[in-house]
Amino acid sequence: MMRYRMTIEYDGTPFHGWQSQVEGNTVQDALSDAIEKFCDERVTVFGAGRTDTGVHARGQVAHIDLIEAVAPDKLRDAMNYYLKPLPVAVLEAAYVSDAFDARFSARARHYEYRLLARRAPLVLDRAQVWWVIRPLDIAAMHQAAQHLLGKHDFTTFRSGRCQANSPVRTLDRLDVTQNDAGVVSVHASARSFLHHQVRSLAGCLKYVGEGKWPPAYVTGILAARNRAACAPVAPANGLTLMRVDYPDERVPVK
Amino acid sequence: MMRYRMTIEYDGTPFHGWQSQVEGNTVQDALSDAIEKFCDERVTVFGAGRTDTGVHARGQVAHIDLIEAVAPDKLRDAMNYYLKPLPVAVLEAAYVSDAFDARFSARARHYEYRLLARRAPLVLDRAQVWWVIRPLDIAAMHQAAQHLLGKHDFTTFRSGRCQANSPVRTLDRLDVTQNDAGVVSVHASARSFLHHQVRSLAGCLKYVGEGKWPPAYVTGILAARNRAACAPVAPANGLTLMRVDYPDERVPVK
Repeated sequence: MMRYRMTIEYDGTPFHGWQSQVEGNTVQDALSDAIEKFCDERVTVFGAGRTDTGVHARGQVAHIDLIEAVAPDKLRDAMNYYLKPLPVAVLEAAYVSDAFDARFSARARHYEYRLLARRAPLVLDRAQVWWVIRPLDIAAMHQAAQHLLGKHDFTTFRSGRCQANSPVRTLDRLDVTQNDAGVVSVHASARSFLHHQVRSLAGCLKYVGEGKWPPAYVTGILAARNRAACAPVAPANGLTLMRVDYPDERVPVK
Repeated sequence: MMRYRMTIEYDGTPFHGWQSQVEGNTVQDALSDAIEKFCDERVTVFGAGRTDTGVHARGQVAHIDLIEAVAPDKLRDAMNYYLKPLPVAVLEAAYVSDAFDARFSARARHYEYRLLARRAPLVLDRAQVWWVIRPLDIAAMHQAAQHLLGKHDFTTFRSGRCQANSPVRTLDRLDVTQNDAGVVSVHASARSFLHHQVRSLAGCLKYVGEGKWPPAYVTGILAARNRAACAPVAPANGLTLMRVDYPDERVPVK
């Protein structure tokens, strides 16, 4: 038996999220189907982050076990062949030790939430950016974000459907930047996130950006530990899982 | 009568290019249709660049004349309302003098052609980036590009269907850059371009990037003034009309 780590990109638009469902049409199912077509084994694909319906990934990480070993580059190319025409691609595949677990070995997850404020609807970026009408104060958003860093009870920013045992998480990075084209990015990093946490944070930062809340207001809603204190959750299409870090990136080659 | 300048963004994927056709489904037609729905006038929309099928725009410029004046912001919002659900948006509308002509007043047109080299197919960027397999030498591409700057007979880089009277153009900028995500951009600026000129240049620079041609080789194919000397034309989806400049951006308000 051989364990592989795969780095995966997908357009979340047509999928019902990452996690396998009875109704099908998930990224996890698409990957399992491609593996089965290629090597006749039905395996479970274990992902680092269970992204929701409509959420994208440029650096999702998953691991699989195959009974019959195949060279990693061949696995990647075969997966990409059998994934067509679905908008999912395996960017990289590598041998890893049996100790590697895409979900539990992850040391940091990095998400990016993108917004663009303008009068005209979005066209070229519509699938990957949240369109907002009112101008955003980027400095205020970034200032608010800094109040949320560190280890806190994030109940306010947690979906009612969240299955995590504890609402406590440590937010290591929450930066707000703007590129030359005016697109605003919220960069969020943590060892792990609660369900809807990044989109809840993005929704609150948007309120701050629009001037509805002063930056320090987020301190109060965090302390409230009350879901009702949260601004509306930002839509899924603006969110992308960018990267997942592991303790030792140089995994042993068998 | 009132003349308006509009700045327009569109996703070229579903359209048969900019220019109106008997078969319909062009950006020009979509704009004329939206104007008619809004103010019951059938007007011609004069664009700065007649982009081909599949080519995108973030800063196409067009002018129109309306018999009944309407505030520019209202025109923009109404256009966007009636353009739905087509992937076309009017970013800005402004009054201009009758001397303004989107095509003939243009002083510079700026295009960006994007490529990404990797083994895995493109997913999130597939509609706007040319996927190439072999690694690209960016420095070699940029070096080659510098040989093509200035005033030349660009017959080699001109479609057989080009209707321009002269094959002579002045290329003011041809820079090759790469962003953090590895996407390579060819930035091309000129007062005007020949038909397929930017895509022909991009196709040749890709050959240089792959090592098929040394950088200085492009000097020879330029001097050949022979369409047969050109590399295969780069696909339309990688090309975006970014901006059009005019002599006096501050046009008089009537």
